[in-house]
Amino acid sequence: MRVLRTVAAVRSAVEGWRASHERVALVPTMGNLHRGHLALVERAAQLADRVIVSIFVNPLQFNDRDDYSRYPRTFEKDQQYLDEYGVAVVFAPSLEDIYPQRLENATHVEVPGLSDILEGASRLGHFRGVTTVVAVLFNIIQPQVAVFGEKDYQQLLIIRRMVADLLMPVEVESIATVRDKDGLALSSRNSYLTKEERARAPILFGALSHAAETIKEGWRNFSILEEEGRQRLVTAGFCPDYFHIRRAEDLAEPGGRENNLVVLAAAYLGKARLIDNMQVQLKSVD
Amino acid sequence: MRVLRTVAAVRSAVEGWRASHERVALVPTMGNLHRGHLALVERAAQLADRVIVSIFVNPLQFNDRDDYSRYPRTFEKDQQYLDEYGVAVVFAPSLEDIYPQRLENATHVEVPGLSDILEGASRLGHFRGVTTVVAVLFNIIQPQVAVFGEKDYQQLLIIRRMVADLLMPVEVESIATVRDKDGLALSSRNSYLTKEERARAPILFGALSHAAETIKEGWRNFSILEEEGRQRLVTAGFCPDYFHIRRAEDLAEPGGRENNLVVLAAAYLGKARLIDNMQVQLKSVD
Repeated sequence: MRVLRTVAAVRSAVEGWRASHERVALVPTMGNLHRGHLALVERAAQLADRVIVSIFVNPLQFNDRDDYSRYPRTFEKDQQYLDEYGVAVVFAPSLEDIYPQRLENATHVEVPGLSDILEGASRLGHFRGVTTVVAVLFNIIQPQVAVFGEKDYQQLLIIRRMVADLLMPVEVESIATVRDKDGLALSSRNSYLTKEERARAPILFGALSHAAETIKEGWRNFSILEEEGRQRLVTAGFCPDYFHIRRAEDLAEPGGRENNLVVLAAAYLGKARLIDNMQVQLKSVD
Repeated sequence: MRVLRTVAAVRSAVEGWRASHERVALVPTMGNLHRGHLALVERAAQLADRVIVSIFVNPLQFNDRDDYSRYPRTFEKDQQYLDEYGVAVVFAPSLEDIYPQRLENATHVEVPGLSDILEGASRLGHFRGVTTVVAVLFNIIQPQVAVFGEKDYQQLLIIRRMVADLLMPVEVESIATVRDKDGLALSSRNSYLTKEERARAPILFGALSHAAETIKEGWRNFSILEEEGRQRLVTAGFCPDYFHIRRAEDLAEPGGRENNLVVLAAAYLGKARLIDNMQVQLKSVD
Protein backbone atom coordinates (compact mmCIF):
# COMPACT_ATOMS: atom_id res chain seq x y z
CA MET A 1 0.00 0.00 0.00
CA ARG A 2 1.40 3.38 -1.02
CA VAL A 3 0.58 6.65 0.66
CA LEU A 4 0.49 9.41 -1.96
CA ARG A 5 0.16 13.02 -0.96
CA THR A 6 0.07 14.96 -4.24
CA VAL A 7 -2.26 15.15 -7.21
CA ALA A 8 0.65 14.49 -9.56
CA ALA A 9 1.66 11.31 -7.71
CA VAL A 10 -1.80 9.80 -7.64
CA ARG A 11 -2.44 10.72 -11.28
CA SER A 12 0.75 9.03 -12.30
CA ALA A 13 -0.17 5.85 -10.38
CA VAL A 14 -3.62 5.76 -11.97
CA GLU A 15 -2.17 6.35 -15.45
CA GLY A 16 -0.05 3.25 -15.13
CA TRP A 17 -3.04 1.14 -14.12
CA ARG A 18 -5.16 2.53 -16.90
CA ALA A 19 -2.47 1.70 -19.44
CA SER A 20 -2.73 -1.93 -18.33
CA HIS A 21 -6.56 -1.76 -18.40
CA GLU A 22 -7.02 -2.13 -14.67
CA ARG A 23 -10.26 -0.86 -13.16
CA VAL A 24 -9.92 1.70 -10.40
CA ALA A 25 -12.34 2.16 -7.50
CA LEU A 26 -12.36 5.21 -5.24
CA VAL A 27 -13.53 5.27 -1.63
CA PRO A 28 -13.64 8.92 -0.54
CA THR A 29 -13.34 9.36 3.22
CA MET A 30 -12.48 12.00 5.78
CA GLY A 31 -10.37 9.50 7.72
CA ASN A 32 -11.00 8.37 11.30
CA LEU A 33 -11.86 5.07 9.74
CA HIS A 34 -14.18 2.49 11.30
CA ARG A 35 -15.71 -0.79 10.17
CA GLY A 36 -18.17 1.10 7.97
CA HIS A 37 -15.32 2.44 5.87
CA LEU A 38 -13.72 -0.98 5.72
CA ALA A 39 -16.97 -2.40 4.34
CA LEU A 40 -16.77 0.28 1.61
CA VAL A 41 -13.22 -0.82 0.86
CA GLU A 42 -14.26 -4.48 0.68
CA ARG A 43 -17.04 -3.63 -1.77
CA ALA A 44 -14.61 -1.50 -3.82
CA ALA A 45 -12.19 -4.42 -4.02
CA GLN A 46 -14.96 -6.59 -5.48
CA LEU A 47 -15.65 -4.00 -8.16
CA ALA A 48 -12.17 -3.04 -9.35
CA ASP A 49 -8.57 -4.18 -9.64
CA ARG A 50 -7.19 -1.24 -7.66
CA VAL A 51 -8.71 0.53 -4.69
CA ILE A 52 -7.82 4.09 -3.78
CA VAL A 53 -8.96 5.40 -0.42
CA SER A 54 -8.83 9.17 -0.19
CA ILE A 55 -8.45 10.73 3.25
CA PHE A 56 -9.24 14.42 3.20
CA VAL A 57 -11.06 16.45 5.83
CA ASN A 58 -12.86 18.83 3.49
CA PRO A 59 -13.34 22.29 5.00
CA LEU A 60 -15.91 23.23 2.34
CA GLN A 61 -18.45 20.78 3.72
CA PHE A 62 -18.26 22.00 7.32
CA ASN A 63 -20.70 24.76 8.05
CA ASP A 64 -19.16 25.11 11.50
CA ARG A 65 -15.50 26.03 11.86
CA ASP A 66 -15.21 24.37 15.30
CA ASP A 67 -16.65 21.17 13.94
CA TYR A 68 -13.96 21.26 11.22
CA SER A 69 -11.06 21.90 13.55
CA ARG A 70 -12.05 19.28 16.13
CA TYR A 71 -12.96 16.63 13.54
CA PRO A 72 -10.91 13.56 14.57
CA ARG A 73 -7.72 13.12 12.50
CA THR A 74 -6.17 9.70 13.09
CA PHE A 75 -3.98 9.18 10.06
CA GLU A 76 -1.49 6.69 11.53
CA LYS A 77 -4.23 4.40 12.80
CA ASP A 78 -6.16 4.75 9.52
CA GLN A 79 -3.11 3.64 7.59
CA GLN A 80 -2.62 0.54 9.74
CA TYR A 81 -6.30 -0.29 9.32
CA LEU A 82 -6.15 -0.08 5.53
CA ASP A 83 -2.88 -1.92 5.20
CA GLU A 84 -4.63 -5.23 5.83
CA TYR A 85 -7.38 -4.58 3.30
CA GLY A 86 -5.58 -4.76 -0.03
CA VAL A 87 -5.77 -1.03 -0.69
CA ALA A 88 -3.45 0.03 -3.51
CA VAL A 89 -3.14 3.70 -2.63
CA VAL A 90 -4.10 5.97 0.22
CA PHE A 91 -4.46 9.44 -1.24
CA ALA A 92 -3.97 11.97 1.52
CA PRO A 93 -3.66 15.36 -0.16
CA SER A 94 -3.06 18.71 1.49
CA LEU A 95 -5.62 21.50 1.48
CA GLU A 96 -3.60 23.29 -1.21
CA ASP A 97 -3.62 20.22 -3.43
CA ILE A 98 -7.38 20.01 -3.48
CA TYR A 99 -8.12 23.73 -3.44
CA PRO A 100 -5.22 25.43 -5.22
CA GLN A 101 -7.12 28.73 -5.25
CA ARG A 102 -8.47 30.55 -2.22
CA LEU A 103 -11.63 28.89 -0.89
CA GLU A 104 -13.94 31.86 -1.18
CA ASN A 105 -14.98 32.35 -4.81
CA ALA A 106 -13.68 28.90 -5.75
CA THR A 107 -15.64 27.04 -8.39
CA HIS A 108 -18.36 24.87 -6.92
CA VAL A 109 -20.63 22.11 -8.07
CA GLU A 110 -24.15 22.24 -6.74
CA VAL A 111 -27.22 20.02 -6.93
CA PRO A 112 -30.03 22.46 -6.15
CA GLY A 113 -33.23 21.33 -4.47
CA LEU A 114 -31.96 18.04 -3.05
CA SER A 115 -29.11 19.90 -1.35
CA ASP A 116 -31.37 22.39 0.39
CA ILE A 117 -33.58 20.09 2.45
CA LEU A 118 -33.07 17.91 5.58
CA GLU A 119 -29.27 17.85 6.22
CA GLY A 120 -28.88 20.75 3.78
CA ALA A 121 -31.38 22.87 5.69
CA SER A 122 -29.58 22.19 8.99
CA ARG A 123 -26.07 22.57 7.54
CA LEU A 124 -26.01 25.42 5.05
CA GLY A 125 -23.54 24.88 2.22
CA HIS A 126 -22.72 21.35 3.42
CA PHE A 127 -23.74 19.48 0.29
CA ARG A 128 -22.21 22.07 -2.03
CA GLY A 129 -18.95 21.30 -0.26
CA VAL A 130 -19.51 17.57 -0.64
CA THR A 131 -20.37 17.68 -4.35
CA THR A 132 -17.48 20.03 -5.06
CA VAL A 133 -14.86 17.87 -3.34
CA VAL A 134 -16.24 14.67 -4.84
CA ALA A 135 -16.10 16.26 -8.31
CA VAL A 136 -12.50 17.29 -7.66
CA LEU A 137 -11.56 13.77 -6.49
CA PHE A 138 -13.28 12.25 -9.53
CA ASN A 139 -11.37 14.64 -11.80
CA ILE A 140 -8.04 13.82 -10.18
CA ILE A 141 -8.45 10.05 -10.03
CA GLN A 142 -10.96 9.34 -12.80
CA PRO A 143 -12.09 6.09 -11.16
CA GLN A 144 -14.40 3.68 -12.98
CA VAL A 145 -16.42 3.29 -9.79
CA ALA A 146 -16.81 5.07 -6.44
CA VAL A 147 -18.35 3.58 -3.33
CA PHE A 148 -20.42 5.46 -0.75
CA GLY A 149 -22.32 4.40 2.37
CA GLU A 150 -26.09 4.45 2.69
CA LYS A 151 -25.79 5.93 6.17
CA ASP A 152 -25.43 9.29 4.43
CA TYR A 153 -28.51 8.56 2.38
CA GLN A 154 -29.15 12.11 1.20
CA GLN A 155 -25.49 12.53 0.26
CA LEU A 156 -25.66 9.34 -1.78
CA LEU A 157 -28.73 10.57 -3.69
CA ILE A 158 -27.09 13.93 -4.32
CA ILE A 159 -23.90 12.33 -5.64
CA ARG A 160 -25.94 10.04 -7.89
CA ARG A 161 -27.83 13.07 -9.18
CA MET A 162 -24.62 15.03 -9.80
CA VAL A 163 -23.07 12.13 -11.70
CA ALA A 164 -26.22 11.67 -13.80
CA ASP A 165 -26.74 15.40 -14.47
CA LEU A 166 -23.14 16.14 -15.39
CA LEU A 167 -22.66 12.82 -17.22
CA MET A 168 -19.61 12.03 -15.14
CA PRO A 169 -17.87 8.89 -16.40
CA VAL A 170 -18.08 6.99 -13.12
CA GLU A 171 -20.40 4.42 -11.56
CA VAL A 172 -21.70 5.11 -8.07
CA GLU A 173 -22.08 2.10 -5.80
CA SER A 174 -23.43 2.03 -2.28
CA ILE A 175 -23.41 -0.35 0.67
CA ALA A 176 -25.80 -0.76 3.56
CA THR A 177 -25.12 1.08 6.81
CA VAL A 178 -22.78 -0.81 9.11
CA ARG A 179 -24.06 -0.88 12.70
CA ASP A 180 -22.84 -1.86 16.12
CA LYS A 181 -24.56 -4.85 17.74
CA ASP A 182 -27.02 -2.54 19.49
CA GLY A 183 -28.01 -0.90 16.20
CA LEU A 184 -26.06 2.34 16.40
CA ALA A 185 -24.78 3.30 12.94
CA LEU A 186 -21.00 3.56 12.89
CA SER A 187 -19.80 7.13 12.55
CA SER A 188 -16.68 9.11 13.27
CA ARG A 189 -18.85 11.44 15.32
CA ASN A 190 -19.78 8.64 17.76
CA SER A 191 -16.44 9.33 19.42
CA TYR A 192 -17.92 12.59 20.73
CA LEU A 193 -20.39 10.61 22.88
CA THR A 194 -19.77 10.11 26.59
CA LYS A 195 -20.08 6.56 27.86
CA GLU A 196 -23.54 7.27 29.20
CA GLU A 197 -24.63 8.91 25.91
CA ARG A 198 -23.22 6.00 23.93
CA ALA A 199 -25.50 3.68 25.90
CA ARG A 200 -28.55 5.78 24.98
CA ALA A 201 -27.52 6.41 21.34
CA PRO A 202 -29.17 3.27 19.85
CA ILE A 203 -32.54 4.83 20.67
CA LEU A 204 -32.12 6.71 17.37
CA PHE A 205 -31.95 3.39 15.55
CA GLY A 206 -34.89 2.18 17.63
CA ALA A 207 -37.06 5.16 16.70
CA LEU A 208 -36.29 4.71 12.98
CA SER A 209 -36.96 0.97 13.20
CA HIS A 210 -40.25 1.55 14.97
CA ALA A 211 -41.41 4.01 12.30
CA ALA A 212 -40.29 1.67 9.51
CA GLU A 213 -42.09 -1.31 11.07
CA THR A 214 -45.27 0.69 11.58
CA ILE A 215 -45.24 1.74 7.91
CA LYS A 216 -44.71 -1.88 6.88
CA GLU A 217 -47.76 -2.83 8.93
CA GLY A 218 -49.81 -0.52 6.71
CA TRP A 219 -49.89 2.69 8.74
CA ARG A 220 -50.10 5.66 6.39
CA ASN A 221 -50.44 8.71 8.62
CA PHE A 222 -46.82 9.79 8.24
CA SER A 223 -47.04 13.07 10.11
CA ILE A 224 -48.19 11.27 13.26
CA LEU A 225 -45.31 8.81 12.90
CA GLU A 226 -42.85 11.67 12.43
CA GLU A 227 -44.12 13.42 15.53
CA GLU A 228 -43.95 10.19 17.49
CA GLY A 229 -40.36 9.64 16.33
CA ARG A 230 -39.35 13.13 17.44
CA GLN A 231 -41.05 12.56 20.81
CA ARG A 232 -39.20 9.31 21.37
CA LEU A 233 -35.92 11.11 20.79
CA VAL A 234 -36.79 14.09 22.98
CA THR A 235 -37.90 11.79 25.79
CA ALA A 236 -34.54 9.97 25.57
CA GLY A 237 -32.64 13.25 25.91
CA PHE A 238 -31.84 13.81 22.23
CA CYS A 239 -32.38 17.17 20.62
CA PRO A 240 -33.81 16.27 17.20
CA ASP A 241 -33.11 18.31 14.07
CA TYR A 242 -35.61 16.39 11.99
CA PHE A 243 -37.42 13.07 11.79
CA HIS A 244 -39.00 12.62 8.38
CA ILE A 245 -40.54 10.01 6.17
CA ARG A 246 -39.74 10.68 2.54
CA ARG A 247 -39.81 9.07 -0.90
CA ALA A 248 -36.65 6.96 -1.21
CA GLU A 249 -36.15 8.07 -4.81
CA ASP A 250 -35.88 11.84 -4.38
CA LEU A 251 -36.67 12.68 -0.73
CA ALA A 252 -39.89 14.43 -1.74
CA GLU A 253 -42.82 14.26 0.69
CA PRO A 254 -44.71 11.08 -0.03
CA GLY A 255 -48.18 11.31 -1.51
CA GLY A 256 -49.30 8.18 0.32
CA ARG A 257 -49.10 5.58 -2.45
CA GLU A 258 -45.33 5.14 -2.76
CA ASN A 259 -43.78 1.73 -2.16
CA ASN A 260 -40.23 2.93 -1.58
CA LEU A 261 -39.80 5.17 1.41
CA VAL A 262 -37.02 6.18 3.74
CA VAL A 263 -37.20 7.39 7.33
CA LEU A 264 -34.45 9.90 8.05
CA ALA A 265 -33.44 11.52 11.30
CA ALA A 266 -30.77 13.79 12.70
CA ALA A 267 -30.46 14.58 16.38
CA TYR A 268 -27.98 15.95 18.84
CA LEU A 269 -27.01 13.76 21.75
CA GLY A 270 -24.75 15.87 23.93
CA LYS A 271 -22.08 17.29 21.65
CA ALA A 272 -22.55 14.70 18.92
CA ARG A 273 -24.89 15.27 16.00
CA LEU A 274 -26.02 11.81 14.90
CA ILE A 275 -27.78 10.99 11.66
CA ASP A 276 -29.29 7.74 10.51
CA ASN A 277 -31.96 6.44 8.16
CA MET A 278 -33.92 3.35 7.31
CA GLN A 279 -35.31 2.37 3.96
CA VAL A 280 -38.77 0.86 3.80
CA GLN A 281 -39.82 -1.19 0.79
CA LEU A 282 -43.48 -2.08 0.71
CA LYS A 283 -44.97 -4.77 -1.46
CA SER A 284 -47.03 -3.20 -4.19
CA VAL A 285 -50.66 -3.00 -3.06
CA ASP A 286 -52.00 -3.03 -6.61
CA MET B 1 -16.03 12.89 -40.78
CA ARG B 2 -18.73 11.22 -38.71
CA VAL B 3 -21.76 12.96 -37.28
CA LEU B 4 -22.63 11.43 -33.91
CA ARG B 5 -25.79 12.36 -32.10
CA THR B 6 -25.69 10.41 -28.85
CA VAL B 7 -23.47 10.35 -25.79
CA ALA B 8 -23.00 6.59 -26.17
CA ALA B 9 -21.82 6.92 -29.78
CA VAL B 10 -19.27 9.66 -29.09
CA ARG B 11 -17.99 7.87 -25.97
CA SER B 12 -17.47 4.71 -27.96
CA ALA B 13 -15.55 6.61 -30.67
CA VAL B 14 -13.32 8.27 -28.10
CA GLU B 15 -12.70 4.98 -26.30
CA GLY B 16 -11.28 3.49 -29.47
CA TRP B 17 -8.92 6.40 -29.96
CA ARG B 18 -7.83 6.32 -26.35
CA ALA B 19 -7.03 2.62 -26.62
CA SER B 20 -4.61 3.47 -29.44
CA HIS B 21 -3.16 6.41 -27.47
CA GLU B 22 -4.48 9.12 -29.76
CA ARG B 23 -4.90 12.61 -28.31
CA VAL B 24 -8.37 14.11 -28.57
CA ALA B 25 -9.14 17.83 -28.88
CA LEU B 26 -12.59 19.30 -28.35
CA VAL B 27 -13.89 22.49 -29.94
CA PRO B 28 -17.22 23.30 -28.28
CA THR B 29 -19.51 25.45 -30.45
CA MET B 30 -23.13 26.44 -30.79
CA GLY B 31 -22.95 25.97 -34.58
CA ASN B 32 -23.54 28.70 -37.17
CA LEU B 33 -19.86 28.32 -37.86
CA HIS B 34 -17.66 31.06 -39.30
CA ARG B 35 -13.94 31.49 -39.92
CA GLY B 36 -13.38 32.07 -36.22
CA HIS B 37 -14.58 28.55 -35.44
CA LEU B 38 -12.46 27.16 -38.26
CA ALA B 39 -9.40 28.79 -36.74
CA LEU B 40 -10.26 26.98 -33.50
CA VAL B 41 -10.46 23.72 -35.43
CA GLU B 42 -7.10 24.35 -37.11
CA ARG B 43 -5.49 24.97 -33.76
CA ALA B 44 -7.13 21.85 -32.32
CA ALA B 45 -5.75 19.77 -35.20
CA GLN B 46 -2.24 20.99 -34.33
CA LEU B 47 -2.70 19.88 -30.73
CA ALA B 48 -4.27 16.45 -31.10
CA ASP B 49 -4.70 13.45 -33.35
CA ARG B 50 -8.48 13.66 -33.40
CA VAL B 51 -10.68 16.74 -33.38
CA ILE B 52 -14.25 16.66 -32.12
CA VAL B 53 -16.42 19.69 -32.80
CA SER B 54 -19.53 19.79 -30.67
CA ILE B 55 -22.53 21.69 -31.96
CA PHE B 56 -25.08 22.32 -29.25
CA VAL B 57 -27.18 25.41 -28.71
CA ASN B 58 -27.19 25.38 -24.93
CA PRO B 59 -30.43 26.74 -23.46
CA LEU B 60 -28.85 27.11 -19.99
CA GLN B 61 -26.58 29.93 -21.16
CA PHE B 62 -29.33 32.06 -22.69
CA ASN B 63 -30.85 34.44 -20.23
CA ASP B 64 -33.43 35.43 -22.88
CA ARG B 65 -35.77 32.80 -24.27
CA ASP B 66 -36.24 34.72 -27.56
CA ASP B 67 -32.50 34.93 -28.02
CA TYR B 68 -32.35 31.14 -27.61
CA SER B 69 -35.14 30.36 -30.04
CA ARG B 70 -33.94 32.72 -32.77
CA TYR B 71 -30.25 31.76 -32.42
CA PRO B 72 -29.19 30.75 -35.96
CA ARG B 73 -29.14 26.96 -36.49
CA THR B 74 -27.38 26.07 -39.74
CA PHE B 75 -26.40 22.45 -39.26
CA GLU B 76 -26.17 21.40 -42.94
CA LYS B 77 -23.88 24.30 -43.81
CA ASP B 78 -21.81 23.75 -40.65
CA GLN B 79 -21.24 20.14 -41.63
CA GLN B 80 -20.05 21.06 -45.13
CA TYR B 81 -17.74 23.62 -43.62
CA LEU B 82 -16.13 21.15 -41.24
CA ASP B 83 -15.86 18.37 -43.78
CA GLU B 84 -12.88 20.08 -45.38
CA TYR B 85 -11.05 20.64 -42.10
CA GLY B 86 -10.08 17.13 -41.07
CA VAL B 87 -12.55 16.95 -38.23
CA ALA B 88 -12.98 13.37 -36.96
CA VAL B 89 -16.38 13.73 -35.34
CA VAL B 90 -19.13 16.32 -35.19
CA PHE B 91 -20.99 15.72 -31.96
CA ALA B 92 -24.50 17.13 -32.28
CA PRO B 93 -26.46 15.88 -29.30
CA SER B 94 -30.10 16.49 -28.49
CA LEU B 95 -31.23 18.53 -25.51
CA GLU B 96 -32.16 15.30 -23.70
CA ASP B 97 -28.70 13.87 -24.28
CA ILE B 98 -26.99 16.76 -22.54
CA TYR B 99 -29.61 17.41 -19.89
CA PRO B 100 -31.24 14.07 -19.14
CA GLN B 101 -33.02 15.57 -16.13
CA ARG B 102 -35.34 18.55 -16.20
CA LEU B 103 -33.44 21.82 -16.52
CA GLU B 104 -34.66 23.48 -13.36
CA ASN B 105 -32.89 22.02 -10.34
CA ALA B 106 -30.27 20.36 -12.57
CA THR B 107 -26.75 20.21 -11.15
CA HIS B 108 -24.69 23.22 -12.10
CA VAL B 109 -21.07 24.23 -12.04
CA GLU B 110 -20.39 27.81 -11.09
CA VAL B 111 -17.35 30.05 -10.87
CA PRO B 112 -18.50 32.77 -8.47
CA GLY B 113 -17.13 36.28 -8.67
CA LEU B 114 -15.75 36.15 -12.20
CA SER B 115 -19.17 35.02 -13.46
CA ASP B 116 -21.05 37.91 -11.89
CA ILE B 117 -19.35 40.91 -13.52
CA LEU B 118 -19.35 42.41 -17.05
CA GLU B 119 -21.15 39.88 -19.29
CA GLY B 120 -22.39 38.09 -16.18
CA ALA B 121 -23.97 41.27 -14.82
CA SER B 122 -25.73 41.91 -18.15
CA ARG B 123 -26.74 38.29 -18.71
CA LEU B 124 -27.81 36.70 -15.42
CA GLY B 125 -27.03 33.01 -15.22
CA HIS B 126 -25.18 33.05 -18.54
CA PHE B 127 -21.80 31.85 -17.31
CA ARG B 128 -23.32 29.25 -14.99
CA GLY B 129 -24.88 27.82 -18.15
CA VAL B 130 -21.55 27.96 -19.97
CA THR B 131 -19.52 26.29 -17.22
CA THR B 132 -22.17 23.63 -16.70
CA VAL B 133 -22.38 22.65 -20.38
CA VAL B 134 -18.59 22.73 -20.80
CA ALA B 135 -18.23 20.47 -17.74
CA VAL B 136 -20.80 18.09 -19.23
CA LEU B 137 -18.99 18.03 -22.59
CA PHE B 138 -15.64 17.43 -20.86
CA ASN B 139 -17.19 14.56 -18.89
CA ILE B 140 -18.67 12.97 -22.00
CA ILE B 141 -15.65 13.32 -24.27
CA GLN B 142 -12.74 13.52 -21.80
CA PRO B 143 -10.55 15.38 -24.29
CA GLN B 144 -6.88 15.99 -23.58
CA VAL B 145 -7.28 19.58 -24.80
CA ALA B 146 -10.12 22.00 -25.55
CA VAL B 147 -9.83 25.16 -27.65
CA PHE B 148 -11.70 28.41 -27.06
CA GLY B 149 -11.61 31.84 -28.71
CA GLU B 150 -10.27 34.97 -27.06
CA LYS B 151 -13.22 36.95 -28.40
CA ASP B 152 -15.15 35.63 -25.42
CA TYR B 153 -12.37 36.71 -23.13
CA GLN B 154 -14.31 36.53 -19.87
CA GLN B 155 -15.66 33.10 -20.80
CA LEU B 156 -12.12 31.91 -21.46
CA LEU B 157 -10.93 33.11 -18.05
CA ILE B 158 -13.91 31.49 -16.35
CA ILE B 159 -13.31 28.15 -18.07
CA ARG B 160 -9.64 28.28 -17.15
CA ARG B 161 -10.61 28.99 -13.54
CA MET B 162 -13.12 26.15 -13.50
CA VAL B 163 -10.57 23.70 -14.90
CA ALA B 164 -7.95 24.84 -12.38
CA ASP B 165 -10.32 24.86 -9.39
CA LEU B 166 -11.91 21.49 -10.09
CA LEU B 167 -8.63 19.94 -11.29
CA MET B 168 -10.24 18.83 -14.52
CA PRO B 169 -7.87 16.65 -16.54
CA VAL B 170 -7.90 18.85 -19.66
CA GLU B 171 -5.69 21.58 -21.10
CA VAL B 172 -7.38 24.81 -22.17
CA GLU B 173 -5.98 26.48 -25.28
CA SER B 174 -7.07 29.76 -26.81
CA ILE B 175 -6.64 31.53 -30.12
CA ALA B 176 -6.74 35.21 -30.99
CA THR B 177 -10.00 36.74 -32.17
CA VAL B 178 -10.57 36.33 -35.89
CA ARG B 179 -11.71 39.60 -37.52
CA ASP B 180 -13.08 40.77 -40.82
CA LYS B 181 -10.82 43.08 -42.84
CA ASP B 182 -12.46 46.13 -41.30
CA GLY B 183 -11.78 44.85 -37.78
CA LEU B 184 -15.19 43.51 -36.80
CA ALA B 185 -14.80 40.37 -34.70
CA LEU B 186 -16.50 37.41 -36.35
CA SER B 187 -19.61 36.31 -34.48
CA SER B 188 -22.76 34.36 -35.18
CA ARG B 189 -24.69 37.36 -33.94
CA ASN B 190 -23.30 39.58 -36.72
CA SER B 191 -25.98 38.03 -38.93
CA TYR B 192 -28.55 40.06 -36.99
CA LEU B 193 -27.04 43.31 -38.35
CA THR B 194 -28.67 45.15 -41.24
CA LYS B 195 -26.38 46.13 -44.10
CA GLU B 196 -26.19 49.66 -42.79
CA GLU B 197 -25.46 48.49 -39.22
CA ARG B 198 -22.80 46.09 -40.51
CA ALA B 199 -21.01 49.08 -42.08
CA ARG B 200 -20.97 50.89 -38.73
CA ALA B 201 -20.16 47.82 -36.60
CA PRO B 202 -16.32 48.12 -36.84
CA ILE B 203 -16.58 51.29 -34.75
CA LEU B 204 -16.63 48.92 -31.75
CA PHE B 205 -13.24 47.57 -32.78
CA GLY B 206 -12.10 51.17 -33.41
CA ALA B 207 -13.11 52.29 -29.92
CA LEU B 208 -11.31 49.36 -28.29
CA SER B 209 -8.21 49.96 -30.43
CA HIS B 210 -8.18 53.64 -29.57
CA ALA B 211 -8.35 52.92 -25.85
CA ALA B 212 -5.66 50.25 -26.14
CA GLU B 213 -3.34 52.57 -28.08
CA THR B 214 -3.86 55.40 -25.61
CA ILE B 215 -2.95 53.09 -22.72
CA LYS B 216 0.16 51.97 -24.61
CA GLU B 217 1.17 55.62 -24.98
CA GLY B 218 1.22 55.82 -21.18
CA TRP B 219 -2.20 57.24 -20.38
CA ARG B 220 -3.32 55.99 -16.98
CA ASN B 221 -6.63 57.68 -16.29
CA PHE B 222 -8.73 54.68 -17.12
CA SER B 223 -12.11 56.07 -16.12
CA ILE B 224 -11.75 58.90 -18.64
CA LEU B 225 -10.81 56.40 -21.33
CA GLU B 226 -13.80 54.23 -20.43
CA GLU B 227 -16.16 57.20 -20.63
CA GLU B 228 -14.62 58.26 -23.96
CA GLY B 229 -15.11 54.72 -25.31
CA ARG B 230 -18.75 54.68 -24.28
CA GLN B 231 -19.25 58.11 -25.88
CA ARG B 232 -17.72 56.96 -29.16
CA LEU B 233 -20.18 54.07 -29.25
CA VAL B 234 -23.20 56.18 -28.33
CA THR B 235 -22.29 58.78 -30.96
CA ALA B 236 -22.14 56.01 -33.57
CA GLY B 237 -25.62 54.79 -32.64
CA PHE B 238 -24.60 51.88 -30.42
CA CYS B 239 -26.24 51.34 -27.07
CA PRO B 240 -23.33 50.28 -24.84
CA ASP B 241 -23.73 47.81 -21.99
CA TYR B 242 -20.22 48.41 -20.70
CA PHE B 243 -16.81 49.63 -21.78
CA HIS B 244 -14.20 48.70 -19.19
CA ILE B 245 -10.46 48.49 -18.73
CA ARG B 246 -9.57 45.58 -16.47
CA ARG B 247 -6.66 43.45 -15.35
CA ALA B 248 -6.13 40.78 -18.00
CA GLU B 249 -5.46 38.17 -15.36
CA ASP B 250 -8.71 38.26 -13.39
CA LEU B 251 -10.80 41.19 -14.71
CA ALA B 252 -10.38 43.08 -11.45
CA GLU B 253 -10.24 46.87 -11.63
CA PRO B 254 -6.64 47.87 -12.27
CA GLY B 255 -4.72 49.64 -9.55
CA GLY B 256 -2.66 51.59 -12.08
CA ARG B 257 0.60 49.64 -12.09
CA GLU B 258 -0.48 46.50 -14.02
CA ASN B 259 1.30 45.63 -17.24
CA ASN B 260 -1.34 43.25 -18.57
CA LEU B 261 -4.70 44.84 -19.22
CA VAL B 262 -7.72 44.16 -21.35
CA VAL B 263 -10.32 46.57 -22.71
CA LEU B 264 -13.72 44.92 -22.90
CA ALA B 265 -16.94 46.21 -24.37
CA ALA B 266 -20.46 45.05 -25.09
CA ALA B 267 -22.97 47.13 -27.02
CA TYR B 268 -26.23 46.76 -28.86
CA LEU B 269 -26.31 47.81 -32.50
CA GLY B 270 -29.90 47.44 -33.62
CA LYS B 271 -30.99 43.95 -32.60
CA ALA B 272 -27.47 42.58 -32.32
CA ARG B 273 -25.58 42.55 -29.05
CA LEU B 274 -21.90 42.70 -29.98
CA ILE B 275 -19.00 42.01 -27.67
CA ASP B 276 -15.30 42.42 -28.25
CA ASN B 277 -12.08 42.99 -26.34
CA MET B 278 -8.48 43.93 -26.80
CA GLN B 279 -5.56 42.89 -24.66
CA VAL B 280 -2.88 45.47 -23.85
CA GLN B 281 0.56 44.36 -22.79
CA LEU B 282 2.79 47.12 -21.52
CA LYS B 283 6.50 46.86 -21.15
CA SER B 284 7.43 46.75 -17.51
CA VAL B 285 8.20 50.28 -16.32
CA ASP B 286 10.47 49.06 -13.50
